[in-house]
Amino acid sequence: MERAFGLERLIFFSDAVFAIAITLLAIELRVPEIVETANDAIASQTLWLAIAAEWPRLLAFALSFYIIGAFWIAHHRYFRYIKSYDEGLIRLNLVWLFFVVLLSFTTAILGEYGNLQIAIVLYALNLICAGLAGEALWYHATHARRLVDAALDGRFIRRLQARTLTMLLASLIVIGLTFFIDDYASFGWLLIFVFQGLVERHYRRAGMFK
Amino acid sequence: MERAFGLERLIFFSDAVFAIAITLLAIELRVPEIVETANDAIASQTLWLAIAAEWPRLLAFALSFYIIGAFWIAHHRYFRYIKSYDEGLIRLNLVWLFFVVLLSFTTAILGEYGNLQIAIVLYALNLICAGLAGEALWYHATHARRLVDAALDGRFIRRLQARTLTMLLASLIVIGLTFFIDDYASFGWLLIFVFQGLVERHYRRAGMFK
Amino acid sequence: MERAFGLERLIFFSDAVFAIAITLLAIELRVPEIVETANDAIASQTLWLAIAAEWPRLLAFALSFYIIGAFWIAHHRYFRYIKSYDEGLIRLNLVWLFFVVLLSFTTAILGEYGNLQIAIVLYALNLICAGLAGEALWYHATHARRLVDAALDGRFIRRLQARTLTMLLASLIVIGLTFFIDDYASFGWLLIFVFQGLVERHYRRAGMFK
Amino acid sequence: MERAFGLERLIFFSDAVFAIAITLLAIELRVPEIVETANDAIASQTLWLAIAAEWPRLLAFALSFYIIGAFWIAHHRYFRYIKSYDEGLIRLNLVWLFFVVLLSFTTAILGEYGNLQIAIVLYALNLICAGLAGEALWYHATHARRLVDAALDGRFIRRLQARTLTMLLASLIVIGLTFFIDDYASFGWLLIFVFQGLVERHYRRAGMFK
Repeated sequence: MERAFGLERLIFFSDAVFAIAITLLAIELRVPEIVETANDAIASQTLWLAIAAEWPRLLAFALSFYIIGAFWIAHHRYFRYIKSYDEGLIRLNLVWLFFVVLLSFTTAILGEYGNLQIAIVLYALNLICAGLAGEALWYHATHARRLVDAALDGRFIRRLQARTLTMLLASLIVIGLTFFIDDYASFGWLLIFVFQGLVERHYRRAGMFK
Repeated sequence: MERAFGLERLIFFSDAVFAIAITLLAIELRVPEIVETANDAIASQTLWLAIAAEWPRLLAFALSFYIIGAFWIAHHRYFRYIKSYDEGLIRLNLVWLFFVVLLSFTTAILGEYGNLQIAIVLYALNLICAGLAGEALWYHATHARRLVDAALDGRFIRRLQARTLTMLLASLIVIGLTFFIDDYASFGWLLIFVFQGLVERHYRRAGMFK
Repeated sequence: MERAFGLERLIFFSDAVFAIAITLLAIELRVPEIVETANDAIASQTLWLAIAAEWPRLLAFALSFYIIGAFWIAHHRYFRYIKSYDEGLIRLNLVWLFFVVLLSFTTAILGEYGNLQIAIVLYALNLICAGLAGEALWYHATHARRLVDAALDGRFIRRLQARTLTMLLASLIVIGLTFFIDDYASFGWLLIFVFQGLVERHYRRAGMFK
Repeated sequence: MERAFGLERLIFFSDAVFAIAITLLAIELRVPEIVETANDAIASQTLWLAIAAEWPRLLAFALSFYIIGAFWIAHHRYFRYIKSYDEGLIRLNLVWLFFVVLLSFTTAILGEYGNLQIAIVLYALNLICAGLAGEALWYHATHARRLVDAALDGRFIRRLQARTLTMLLASLIVIGLTFFIDDYASFGWLLIFVFQGLVERHYRRAGMFK
């Protein structure tokens, strides 16, 4: 009883951090300042162009919204099977949240300087750290069935791992891409969608997830 | 049991995002900078005029507070009847939250450039996207009674749809208005209050809602 | 069961808004910019003076933290006795939250222009609106025992009213004070502490609250 | 039942405040502004240097993330044993949260002026106040077993105290250090890790915590 409640608090605290991190992303979307003219039609067009020029920030916002959402879904899935907790779980969870929170910073850098290699690499490294922390938590919980049901299927455990691994893989590919194509390397993030789609499809085929 | 808990987390995560999105709206309300004078009475009047000049931002804040509140109420109602969840529900819920979070950006634009057509149209489009995502979630959940009680009354399902549709309808009308009356098109949002009032009244008359 | 869950969501949504509103207050505390000198001791002193010069913002922060905390406690107490909900309760709750969220704006104005009458009056009016919304919610819930236990003691209901009324009373007195003493009218907020202390003491004496 | 629910709300409200405070820390990490050049490789290097120059802010962010996380863990542990609540607990909890929220301000000062004595001292004082508030809450709850199980082991109570005390001790040492070594006094915070590690180890050895 007491155990369950402690675990619940851990989960709600995490939910709150994920929710705030995902919502704060919008703060980086800045209202452009335009020189207002007497003619509203011209001013309206000027504003449109100014907002359209924000597309790198909007893309970075959408990408990070997707990624934090995906991390939250992973967290959600892990904790459906985690039945108890220990110090290690609390710590690894905080490490994971640390890198999720840091994403708001690297997202802002990516939105501002998405054409520069360092911005893409930092974002990718942040993603990799967050992904590894998530994997470490899942490993800690499932190794020797420490914090999960002893009967939990081993294939199942590996499949939940696979999903986060797609993010790590896509990040490594994107980092590689930045050495060849500067301005378009960011499109490599689309691989996450492709990879996750493939994993999803695999799950569905195997009939292990609805 | 496990299912119920997973659904609960989905709901609390959504609650947190709604709550943060609605509270962050206030961040766009900026304290005006005034030139302080030795005479406090004059400075006080200057400050009052400066704050009063913020009325478009205050109105945009109040409008979006109402709208995010209405979306939250819709979410609240939907999930009173949704009894289980699947991948699709989680995804549609995230899409809905995405457009709710984006409202903080389009609200800021509306507050700053509410006299320009593009600001009103973008806000209306954001609202329409959010509304459609909500409708899609409800359709996904209720189609063939996928995630709701099999005995749930079909009229009831359509009535919950109707409420969100009022926002879409009002948004379309406002977009239309911007082509004729620029500066006052925003008053078209008042239609949301009128429409929702009518729907409410209809509900009450039909005795289906308290 | 369903009812209880709906009420729970209403409460957690409110908790989240209160929590965010109270935490966002700290955003208005700005790190002062100082001209760094080669001598660290002098720079340290300069920084100290700059931070000390922020005292009106720090006071406004502490005051609003206390007040939002007090509103949250009031909300907490009301909902210990509210056992069901209806449309009206949801709406009044949102109105209350609206004025709580708006406090972040009027707090910033008070912190910046606390010596000007209009800043104090606006803050007081905001407080009064929030207080009235809280009272309206409690009246709505308890009138004819609509949403509370039919056996709930009438004296108890009035006593919970009294607490919020102290804020309204103090606010009115502060507004009055601004017409006579400009710069020191804000000290009138200390009356809230005095009044609430008196009410608390009265409660304890009557043995109705621990 | 009613009691338990009231306590639950107190906990979730606190969780939300901790979660927001810990996430808002990232807001102070500012995207550097660089002069973009035609050569992307040079611009990328310039950006890297600009971000690297942010290390004091990044360290302050990481430190406060760790500390707020540690306070949350302490809160988590205290409330595993606290079984009921009273006015005093609610108040002490709010005082604790006040100093946690204030950390976002003193963290920003530390990140900006970490080489100045006053920045370090203010941060340390804030930490000490937060720590004392936590200790006061725990003392209030456990004194004469007021709000905890009457059978709760006294050694256990003292051990939970010890953990927060390490932060107070480290803070005092850091304040002392600032009088001798200016620029490197901040490294004294590492003592928290050392102290907490020692306490953890002591716990594990005594077999009282997993």
